[in-house]
Amino acid sequence: MLAIHLENGRVETRHIAMPRRPPGFSLIRLIAAGICNTDLELQRGYYGFTGQPGHEFVGEVVESDRAGLVGKRVCGEINLGCDTCDWCARGLARHCPNRTVLGIVRHPGAFAEYLTLPDRNLHVLPDEVRTEHAVFIEPLAAAARILDQVRVEPMTRTAVLGDGKLGLLIAQVLDASGARPVLYGKHPEKLRIAEERGIRTERFADPPPAAFQLTVDATGSPAGLRAAIAMTEPLGTVVLKSTMHGAAEWDPVPVIVNEITLAGSRCGRFEPAVELLRAGRVDVSRMISDEFPLDQAARAFARAAEPGVLKVLLRPA
Amino acid sequence: MLAIHLENGRVETRHIAMPRRPPGFSLIRLIAAGICNTDLELQRGYYGFTGQPGHEFVGEVVESDRAGLVGKRVCGEINLGCDTCDWCARGLARHCPNRTVLGIVRHPGAFAEYLTLPDRNLHVLPDEVRTEHAVFIEPLAAAARILDQVRVEPMTRTAVLGDGKLGLLIAQVLDASGARPVLYGKHPEKLRIAEERGIRTERFADPPPAAFQLTVDATGSPAGLRAAIAMTEPLGTVVLKSTMHGAAEWDPVPVIVNEITLAGSRCGRFEPAVELLRAGRVDVSRMISDEFPLDQAARAFARAAEPGVLKVLLRPA
Repeated sequence: MLAIHLENGRVETRHIAMPRRPPGFSLIRLIAAGICNTDLELQRGYYGFTGQPGHEFVGEVVESDRAGLVGKRVCGEINLGCDTCDWCARGLARHCPNRTVLGIVRHPGAFAEYLTLPDRNLHVLPDEVRTEHAVFIEPLAAAARILDQVRVEPMTRTAVLGDGKLGLLIAQVLDASGARPVLYGKHPEKLRIAEERGIRTERFADPPPAAFQLTVDATGSPAGLRAAIAMTEPLGTVVLKSTMHGAAEWDPVPVIVNEITLAGSRCGRFEPAVELLRAGRVDVSRMISDEFPLDQAARAFARAAEPGVLKVLLRPA
Repeated sequence: MLAIHLENGRVETRHIAMPRRPPGFSLIRLIAAGICNTDLELQRGYYGFTGQPGHEFVGEVVESDRAGLVGKRVCGEINLGCDTCDWCARGLARHCPNRTVLGIVRHPGAFAEYLTLPDRNLHVLPDEVRTEHAVFIEPLAAAARILDQVRVEPMTRTAVLGDGKLGLLIAQVLDASGARPVLYGKHPEKLRIAEERGIRTERFADPPPAAFQLTVDATGSPAGLRAAIAMTEPLGTVVLKSTMHGAAEWDPVPVIVNEITLAGSRCGRFEPAVELLRAGRVDVSRMISDEFPLDQAARAFARAAEPGVLKVLLRPA
């Protein structure tokens, strides 16, 4: 089968053997996958990654111990817990210390014609959700994770920093929750996507100090984190929603003096994400920039890294 | 009257005019005051401070609009709100954007024979609480603030980093709450104070990774913060409990990946602190290292800055 291989910054499409399906796992034929910023970072050597990336996907189950799954269109949670530790017993495989992660940590990713995942990781997609939209379920679940961590009410003054893919999803999730966020960004064409959903946007030039109770930093930059802290009022919360690499400089004094809470936030439950798409409360149709077949993966990665580009999809040839 | 003046690192005792008591303020005669690490930092130029420091004190009210206060032994909350903003209206003068702060921000401090504070800031001390112990009420309130911010239960695995004055108070507060903390420090003689209260201690050499649900960083150092993050398990909380100055380097990735919450924590309510001392649930008697009269303030500050020294008290001559 065709599969993408990352090594030392190179993106190659290789012919490799089909994956073997262990007991409890399904074999899934890829229908479409999405390139995430994390994939670009894996390409740059984040985590010292070498291997087969891809963790945003929609596929069809072709083999499974659960007969009801076969033939179904699915997406899948990316963390594979060990199923024996306390974290897994508490339903928190996302934090299992022995976990592997689809396309990120020791489990071959979804940028391939076939992949495997545990049956329990799979979610059958409602017919109303289009495949190219369902590719966003994984990052949308990460965006909706914020609502599991922080109490957000209609009167909560909320800002999102960063108008990339994750920022646009987070702004829509907060808007769907009734919180009326302000999205701060630097790209008018990206901000316009949020504006068309009725979300207030601002250019990220001179954000107001201490103006928000909840600020979500989706910039991935130390400067964004510093701005998020400055924009948050005393006793407020800053959600750290994107990965930053290496050491970041920050000044903890305003966090302590203003008793601000910084909340790290990563993967989320898929159920609310599926429902947000199904009900049309989040719209990702304007967030797809391009599409490539798997055998043009290097072009696809290069395209995804261009400024102004949002989601780039991969499909089997 | 005698008053201490800090300027460019120098500590002087000066003769100055008695403070005037505005309406709603009490005039207080100092009985004893304590030198806090913040005072040493003010001496070093933190906040660009020049002026009269001191915010841990016990005094006797000598003039007040509230007749019931006159003659009473009091301690006092250090934040003076504007009394007109929303924060003050919500009872959060600690976060009033227009606040002054006793001995720290634009309100002359307690290292003087007389000071003034709003009547509403004062707490009459129970007879059972000795004056030299009551000097600890302000930092003890800051330690107990954690219990207002974070849910701590008897089974919560809790660590405190730093065996300075604040760390020793925090460990005792958590212990009194039933949480059985482990205090990590570098000074056997300080750790012994906690051990005599039945608190488990460890040398801060090689702290266990991801072992605690709640870690309080009272080291005041970037290395302490990094260690606190590493010691905290996924979904756990790190309380930032001491001021660090200037930029600190940190790696946000473990905070995001492990979804750790960092909670800035500053001043607290005085009522629980008074009660902890009154009931003997916190013991500060072993934490007093020395005592000086106000006219030997420079010696007192030098003594407080010596390694291994805990609280240094100041008294009127």
